[in-house]
Amino acid sequence: MTSIFDQHLPRNEANFAPITPLAFLQRTAEVYPGKLAIVHGPVRRTWAQTYERCRRLASALSRHGIGKGQTVAVMLPNTPPMVEAHFGVPMAGAVLNSLNTRLDAETIAFMLDHGEARAVIVDPEFTGVMDKALALRQRQEPLLVIDVEDEVWTGRHDRIGSLTYEELLAGGDPAFAWQMPGDEWDAIALNYTSGTTGNPKGVVYHHRGAAVNAISNILEWDMGKHPVYLWTLPMFHCNGWCFPWTIAARAGVNVCLRKVEAQAMADAIREHGVTHYCGAPIVHGLLVNAPDAMKAGLPRGVKAMVAGAAPPASMIEGMERMGFDLTHVYGLTEVYGPATACAQHDEWNALDIGERARLNARQGVRYHLQRDAQVLDPQTMQPVPWDGETMGEIMFRGNITMKGYLKNEKATQEAFAGGWFHTGDLAVQYPDGYIKIKDRSKDIIISGGENISSIEVEDVLYRHPAVLAAAVVAKPDAKWGETPCAFVEVKPGAQVTPADIVAHCKQHLAGFKVPRAVVFGELPKTSTGKIQKFELRKQAGSATAIDV
Amino acid sequence: MTSIFDQHLPRNEANFAPITPLAFLQRTAEVYPGKLAIVHGPVRRTWAQTYERCRRLASALSRHGIGKGQTVAVMLPNTPPMVEAHFGVPMAGAVLNSLNTRLDAETIAFMLDHGEARAVIVDPEFTGVMDKALALRQRQEPLLVIDVEDEVWTGRHDRIGSLTYEELLAGGDPAFAWQMPGDEWDAIALNYTSGTTGNPKGVVYHHRGAAVNAISNILEWDMGKHPVYLWTLPMFHCNGWCFPWTIAARAGVNVCLRKVEAQAMADAIREHGVTHYCGAPIVHGLLVNAPDAMKAGLPRGVKAMVAGAAPPASMIEGMERMGFDLTHVYGLTEVYGPATACAQHDEWNALDIGERARLNARQGVRYHLQRDAQVLDPQTMQPVPWDGETMGEIMFRGNITMKGYLKNEKATQEAFAGGWFHTGDLAVQYPDGYIKIKDRSKDIIISGGENISSIEVEDVLYRHPAVLAAAVVAKPDAKWGETPCAFVEVKPGAQVTPADIVAHCKQHLAGFKVPRAVVFGELPKTSTGKIQKFELRKQAGSATAIDV
Repeated sequence: MTSIFDQHLPRNEANFAPITPLAFLQRTAEVYPGKLAIVHGPVRRTWAQTYERCRRLASALSRHGIGKGQTVAVMLPNTPPMVEAHFGVPMAGAVLNSLNTRLDAETIAFMLDHGEARAVIVDPEFTGVMDKALALRQRQEPLLVIDVEDEVWTGRHDRIGSLTYEELLAGGDPAFAWQMPGDEWDAIALNYTSGTTGNPKGVVYHHRGAAVNAISNILEWDMGKHPVYLWTLPMFHCNGWCFPWTIAARAGVNVCLRKVEAQAMADAIREHGVTHYCGAPIVHGLLVNAPDAMKAGLPRGVKAMVAGAAPPASMIEGMERMGFDLTHVYGLTEVYGPATACAQHDEWNALDIGERARLNARQGVRYHLQRDAQVLDPQTMQPVPWDGETMGEIMFRGNITMKGYLKNEKATQEAFAGGWFHTGDLAVQYPDGYIKIKDRSKDIIISGGENISSIEVEDVLYRHPAVLAAAVVAKPDAKWGETPCAFVEVKPGAQVTPADIVAHCKQHLAGFKVPRAVVFGELPKTSTGKIQKFELRKQAGSATAIDV
Repeated sequence: MTSIFDQHLPRNEANFAPITPLAFLQRTAEVYPGKLAIVHGPVRRTWAQTYERCRRLASALSRHGIGKGQTVAVMLPNTPPMVEAHFGVPMAGAVLNSLNTRLDAETIAFMLDHGEARAVIVDPEFTGVMDKALALRQRQEPLLVIDVEDEVWTGRHDRIGSLTYEELLAGGDPAFAWQMPGDEWDAIALNYTSGTTGNPKGVVYHHRGAAVNAISNILEWDMGKHPVYLWTLPMFHCNGWCFPWTIAARAGVNVCLRKVEAQAMADAIREHGVTHYCGAPIVHGLLVNAPDAMKAGLPRGVKAMVAGAAPPASMIEGMERMGFDLTHVYGLTEVYGPATACAQHDEWNALDIGERARLNARQGVRYHLQRDAQVLDPQTMQPVPWDGETMGEIMFRGNITMKGYLKNEKATQEAFAGGWFHTGDLAVQYPDGYIKIKDRSKDIIISGGENISSIEVEDVLYRHPAVLAAAVVAKPDAKWGETPCAFVEVKPGAQVTPADIVAHCKQHLAGFKVPRAVVFGELPKTSTGKIQKFELRKQAGSATAIDV
């Protein structure tokens, strides 16, 4: 029998509204119209102005025939049009496809084709590669190309499109009666994974997940109203971990930054009173390793979020000296950016730096509004024992998980097999429930039948005082199958030999885990600062082994 | 044609989970098991312990055959069982009906019948009235009656049930595999309104709304992790404005309080480092008007939320002297408690106290995650001009709005007519969009934070044999905010005194609803015979109060 609580109590317009981050912008523009929303070089815009520009953008796209379920691609650095695209595109009902600005023309052409983009907005820095991509594109449908003009950009402004971004906005209605999404399950964004093998996969985000993750960011950081957020994390990366929507929800300031450099970061933090920023370890390393003079006058209490790799002890110490508060998070494109956080405990403050670093290096616990994050045995789908030793695969379920992969039913079903999203990351779970990654399944090194976690070896390498960055990959070996090969970027001025590195590793690692080859040089990195292990794997084959 | 973003991208267990505040408890118990959750007299319990007790409660209810869509009533002050009921009852799939502990036996019997309660948990303070209510109950179905034993209660512990609360919990499984709700639209709570006409209406809350409002509380207050929350607001009022769920989400401390008194509040704030509390103006007045000695050593920066009536300038000043931060919110049972907040602006700090009080007296703007709050013309359903003068009715829409009224399809449809929830409160909207209530169309009297229906009191007056006509309006009161003032037209030749009237009312009404002043005379009426309450309100101020 139906419960009395299910009789004559349906959803209706009064008591149900699709959850969407677009509502954040609308409320902030109404409640805090005069508050600063955007800083970009000499540009200052309030939330009322930003909302008006987003409405113009939505209106203009509509007038160009672009609407529900259609794709608008953007190739933009962290500039105002990129912030506006996060609202104006979905306010037209369309789906935002933020292209990684470091990609080559061929890959971009693939994405424009696969995502069926109807328009693309291009920064002057990327007109060259985009022009090539447009030529390589295979779809016949018309594509509206829009050129951004940016006074902060000091290079050329080549025109490759039919109109400029400001011309587009001028043709839009500042009072456009845009519509909230009809369904919170509607797509809001399309983000291609880097795709180390085969073609990139198009990860589809929905309004519900974008809003829920944006709020989880607030909860994780205890973020009060009116934060000042420095855009060191590319917005093309998981929509900047959903922070464009977070900052709108908090009526904060978006401090734009075309290029991430230590001087520019320090200047922005001082000048605008930055309170929060995110990035890969390399981003934080820029500040930690900057000369003291450059860091003079930096405010204390700035909150920093780090992901992409565990922050080494030296970085945690460096951040503490600056008085910055570092939160370690972990995620993937498929889970909207961060989906676990290494939630800290008061008791940790009493521990020594080594122990604090060890605890903080863990990926931690599920993000606030994610339903679950667990390490499961991928065969049985049962949780591994919380012993800090038994390996399994990190899996997620809940609202901060993608709709799936665009036009790739097979990959979607595989990713969600058994009712969990499979990350491909191998990990253990400690007795306190904290997850610690041991390796990407593809990064694990198998030597003489023994599994070697490349991350474990890298952690040891990072403890050597001369090491700035390190990565360990498998080197094919006739006898052992594979052996660890270390690639090391040395700190400026430091003197160190391969033998020194090996000796250091022998002190801290079982013999079979010690690298058999050590290569010095700059490490290849992605646009987000992640080390490109697939490049190193190519080099590892020809690296000279050392007798250990 | 279906968009590519709607093809083969369905909801599944991996990427969709019903939104529910029960997830907050689970996460906090897992991430912060050792953090303090409950303070009650000498009782201290962690989140791990609280979670275990909630699982026991859910398990025990299940074992007693109580489950999905069935009602569990509670008649409890702000004690640990009340916090636990907010989780344990819905963890069994059941619906929590928190009874107003100030109500009379007749009204409670009505609620137990109408809500079809299957169990009721009773505090020793209320066994007397509950015993009478159980005798008045008309339904024949069995009702499990559970007696709470509370060492903080200094009065009698009469047993009226078949087992005690601790016995109930002892029979539950501490590792009970409870289920998240199958649908976020499932009911979580049932809260009866005071009922301006006829019987009280049963407002049904769902999991989605409860979670969304609990998070909005965090956003409004910029509430960081681990707040210390003092329970001055009754949890039977709109589930304590959803704060039991908010505090769980933030891994905070619930400081319980059986009775709201200045000394007890000041002691608790000092002793436990209280950071947040809520209440009607009378609650804040207790502290503001307390002797300085009692307030000595109170920490500064405590955040207080006030609703029920606008805080007068003297209260704002008093709170400022104490260094407390006051936020004015507004709402109704139908919108889960607060649904607008008078969001403050930095610029206001420069204004004088009179102007600040005037701005803060406004009901403000929609709560963070409520979709909309507007003043509409109830005839045309169009927004009134934002001129601070044109009156309309405050209306809400969005996820922080009830499912509807239980077993009252007509009232539900009326409340949601035109796709908005009609509050019945008349208001204007200022040029900055802030809403300000001008009048209450239903003549509700708010006394000590409790709603009193003038019509209910009038109905009782009309039952007195000497009464020809009667009208009840609010009389301003320094302590209670308002008290009921009765205007009575006596039948020709009848002999009756104010004391007779009060005695009659005491027989049929809860104590706080009994008029504090009775005025005899002819009632002012319109040409159509309608009593002109606005005339009576003018007179009520000077009416002589009676010691009731």
